[in-house]
Amino acid sequence: MQERECGESAAPLYLRVRDQLASKIEEGSLAPNTRLPSERILAEEYGTTRVTARLALAQLEREGRLFRSNRRGWFVSPPRLIYKPAHDYSFSDYVTAQGRVLETETLDVTPMETSPWLAAKTGLSVGDPIVLLRRRRQIDGRPVLVENIYLNPERLPNIATYDFNRSLWKLLREKYDVELRQKRIEMYPTALVEPQASDIGVTVGTAGLYVTRCSRDAEGRFVELDEEFWLHDALSIQVDVD
Amino acid sequence: MQERECGESAAPLYLRVRDQLASKIEEGSLAPNTRLPSERILAEEYGTTRVTARLALAQLEREGRLFRSNRRGWFVSPPRLIYKPAHDYSFSDYVTAQGRVLETETLDVTPMETSPWLAAKTGLSVGDPIVLLRRRRQIDGRPVLVENIYLNPERLPNIATYDFNRSLWKLLREKYDVELRQKRIEMYPTALVEPQASDIGVTVGTAGLYVTRCSRDAEGRFVELDEEFWLHDALSIQVDVD
Repeated sequence: MQERECGESAAPLYLRVRDQLASKIEEGSLAPNTRLPSERILAEEYGTTRVTARLALAQLEREGRLFRSNRRGWFVSPPRLIYKPAHDYSFSDYVTAQGRVLETETLDVTPMETSPWLAAKTGLSVGDPIVLLRRRRQIDGRPVLVENIYLNPERLPNIATYDFNRSLWKLLREKYDVELRQKRIEMYPTALVEPQASDIGVTVGTAGLYVTRCSRDAEGRFVELDEEFWLHDALSIQVDVD
Repeated sequence: MQERECGESAAPLYLRVRDQLASKIEEGSLAPNTRLPSERILAEEYGTTRVTARLALAQLEREGRLFRSNRRGWFVSPPRLIYKPAHDYSFSDYVTAQGRVLETETLDVTPMETSPWLAAKTGLSVGDPIVLLRRRRQIDGRPVLVENIYLNPERLPNIATYDFNRSLWKLLREKYDVELRQKRIEMYPTALVEPQASDIGVTVGTAGLYVTRCSRDAEGRFVELDEEFWLHDALSIQVDVD
């Protein structure tokens, strides 16, 4: 994987191609959403092979600077969406405030029973009814997120009958008068597996960020448990401490 | 990459091996830091090839459930360290409170001039003196983090003369009476590049988490800018919202 040419610097050739492309992205001469030339043309431009060009592109993809679009080639990643988990805003409002376009699509809504894992997370009892809502979200037309939302039908009667292709946070406030409290948010990098990888349209093993959040109402009753599976390059998390 | 056998389920074989190993890890029958059998023995155990076994192991590595140790084979990842960035604790205290052992090693200390990038981040002027401290941190003997710390020598006279193989936060408090304020923390998944990959002892492109934090004193003067490059499987970030 680490090609070298005699008498040249010790850095593998693909990392030098990577450095040059990364500089162009940082300086802005390769702007967000720009389509890169083909691997063949890039290889010619940098005086190298297609294999080396592809290694450089794959490295920049892992860093979140480039992304691949099915059969359409390589593109410069758009800026990461800034997410401030300590602020209690609707996610849709966040996206809009950053000049981006959010689309939300319901994949399925499944009434089920609380499993031991869910019981430990939510405080419900094993076997209690719970509703699983799966949604996909796109930012500027690119699928970046799939989420599993477990809803408490005892606190949210008839929840399965609503339209979820909108802000869930606003739905809960308007229809159920829920003030979400006591939120604990946890997140870590991971790799996407099925069904999330297919739902987002990437291969299994693509780097991701897992974000989970458990919300209760003002009385401490369990309302919803959210598990978000993000594409690794789609967001940046900010926390301000005073 | 996706092997299939006739008449079997649609999931590629390596994902089925992955699922079985993941279950053993979740149930605890494969405990943290357990060394896995060799790829050859795993392949026999699951009735598959070494190539398929290796694909399953690599997928679990990307998910942060297994890690590879140079020439010693595959191990079950220890629990992720829990990090609460909204709490203003010393990082060393965090690690100790979770029953883990932290080692801090200074890689180098370099007086330099503020670059345009640093000026934008810190509020210093281009060309102002600044000190770059690079450290590596190990948790339970495993290198998980390399950090670039940019220190303001005007606020911290003679800072380059101290021992940094300890808590920087405590050093700043004891020697300079600094109360850190106005911290902005930002983090996103990325892939490790050089020199961080070599410093941690992993290959370029290994998944990581980038965490950056800018701290000022009670008067708003720039004290330090920290850039942390974490191994992807080493930590989990928690934020509580009331």
